Amino acid sequence: MLQATATIRVRYQETDKMGIAYHGNYFTWLEVARIHLLDSIDCPYKKMEKDGYLLPVIHCECIYKSPAKFDDLIDVEVQMPGVGDARLNLIYTLKNQEKLIAKAKTTHAFVDDSGKVVRPPRDFIQKAKAAILRSHSSA
Amino acid sequence: MLQATATIRVRYQETDKMGIAYHGNYFTWLEVARIHLLDSIDCPYKKMEKDGYLLPVIHCECIYKSPAKFDDLIDVEVQMPGVGDARLNLIYTLKNQEKLIAKAKTTHAFVDDSGKVVRPPRDFIQKAKAAILRSHSSA
Amino acid sequence: MLQATATIRVRYQETDKMGIAYHGNYFTWLEVARIHLLDSIDCPYKKMEKDGYLLPVIHCECIYKSPAKFDDLIDVEVQMPGVGDARLNLIYTLKNQEKLIAKAKTTHAFVDDSGKVVRPPRDFIQKAKAAILRSHSSA
Amino acid sequence: MLQATATIRVRYQETDKMGIAYHGNYFTWLEVARIHLLDSIDCPYKKMEKDGYLLPVIHCECIYKSPAKFDDLIDVEVQMPGVGDARLNLIYTLKNQEKLIAKAKTTHAFVDDSGKVVRPPRDFIQKAKAAILRSHSSA
Repeated sequence: MLQATATIRVRYQETDKMGIAYHGNYFTWLEVARIHLLDSIDCPYKKMEKDGYLLPVIHCECIYKSPAKFDDLIDVEVQMPGVGDARLNLIYTLKNQEKLIAKAKTTHAFVDDSGKVVRPPRDFIQKAKAAILRSHSSA
Repeated sequence: MLQATATIRVRYQETDKMGIAYHGNYFTWLEVARIHLLDSIDCPYKKMEKDGYLLPVIHCECIYKSPAKFDDLIDVEVQMPGVGDARLNLIYTLKNQEKLIAKAKTTHAFVDDSGKVVRPPRDFIQKAKAAILRSHSSA
Repeated sequence: MLQATATIRVRYQETDKMGIAYHGNYFTWLEVARIHLLDSIDCPYKKMEKDGYLLPVIHCECIYKSPAKFDDLIDVEVQMPGVGDARLNLIYTLKNQEKLIAKAKTTHAFVDDSGKVVRPPRDFIQKAKAAILRSHSSA
Repeated sequence: MLQATATIRVRYQETDKMGIAYHGNYFTWLEVARIHLLDSIDCPYKKMEKDGYLLPVIHCECIYKSPAKFDDLIDVEVQMPGVGDARLNLIYTLKNQEKLIAKAKTTHAFVDDSGKVVRPPRDFIQKAKAAILRSHSSA
């Protein structure tokens, strides 16, 4: 399984008057981890867009377990269980050291510039599969 | 069932380089509708906080059906199926005229200033129940 | 002088842990007023973009006089002192009823799709000038 | 002069439909650099707040020279020209490698929990002055 972890530091701007990070901002942190995952298999999202592929979110969900606070360092781990489907499913675990902060999921469609759903780019599939193989052999 | 609709106009700031509203921003729109619902039963959230109650989001979810674009007028309908539980469940339907934009859910806990889960404020329960009764009798 | 006022209601998401609206979010409110001003002279910004004109901000500034809080209704008045220059200067006054919240300025360039600075669209100049004349004659 | 540089990576969420980072989001990046500067003199802002000091922005300004785009790495350099005044003035230079992206300024007041303007905390003044001295002697 593909996996990557990005660490974000909670910005003051991301907090609200409850004194904790606003729930909607977690989805930006998921994005940061997702970008990181694509980097890690040499498929930067920026390049995918240049090649005419977009990855809009078609479903997202988050369960909040413990608040994230200003200046907290949050490890956002993202896992890609499979590859090759028309849809991309990602699973996230957010932790502050050992404390569980949140669990989340996003589902993405691959679409082209015109918004039409398309098959995932071949380059992405190959690199993701190769990375999964590497992760198995190194385990 | 309690129900209210807030209309938001998509801000330029809420769009991203895909040319559509960023998925995480929909949760702010849900907030606008939620605030509106609480207003409609004379339980403004601002007053609830003054009375020592907070309503953090403990779960949220959104299914994106059709993109929301800059300057679109989005009707965010929120429904409160029940009242009196320790948790508050809300269901949202987002439409641009007749076109379905998204469906969403949020779950909230009632907590006090110290973060401890508490029973919903009595005033809220009474007013919500009265509003539900009124909606039935007027139907 | 052209002038318009948009009223925004401070969102929870726009507050920070200081309990007040985050300073950077005021610039989104200025946008709301600006869009409103362009609507008022029948030059919606959305149409300007469709016609190939963009209005990026090249300078902005804000002086904060009194905090804006959650749920406050803020009147954002925007004034356009002149029209016809390559650059568009706008001046803003933000009030909560009679209390001054902030004063702000933005400067915009007219650019085309390729990012090249261009003259303002003729339609915009004509409509803005006509609106200024109307405002004089009605004064 | 005190100085620090934080590098931010432009998030997709921070872009708008113009394809570039939204102007208002730059102020969040300034915050990141400011937090970094306070860390560098061992006066983390989080601790200042715990000690009862807040640093609200009372003026801010930004000149945009070249757009920041998704995934760009932006170096946000912040300088603190002086120390000891009731107000804190900070000057920022944003660069993408050698390309100037923006120049900015923020002014902050020191206030206590009740919002009253106060003198800067002694600990902050001492550490900032010591850091300035060190920067001179190492130059």
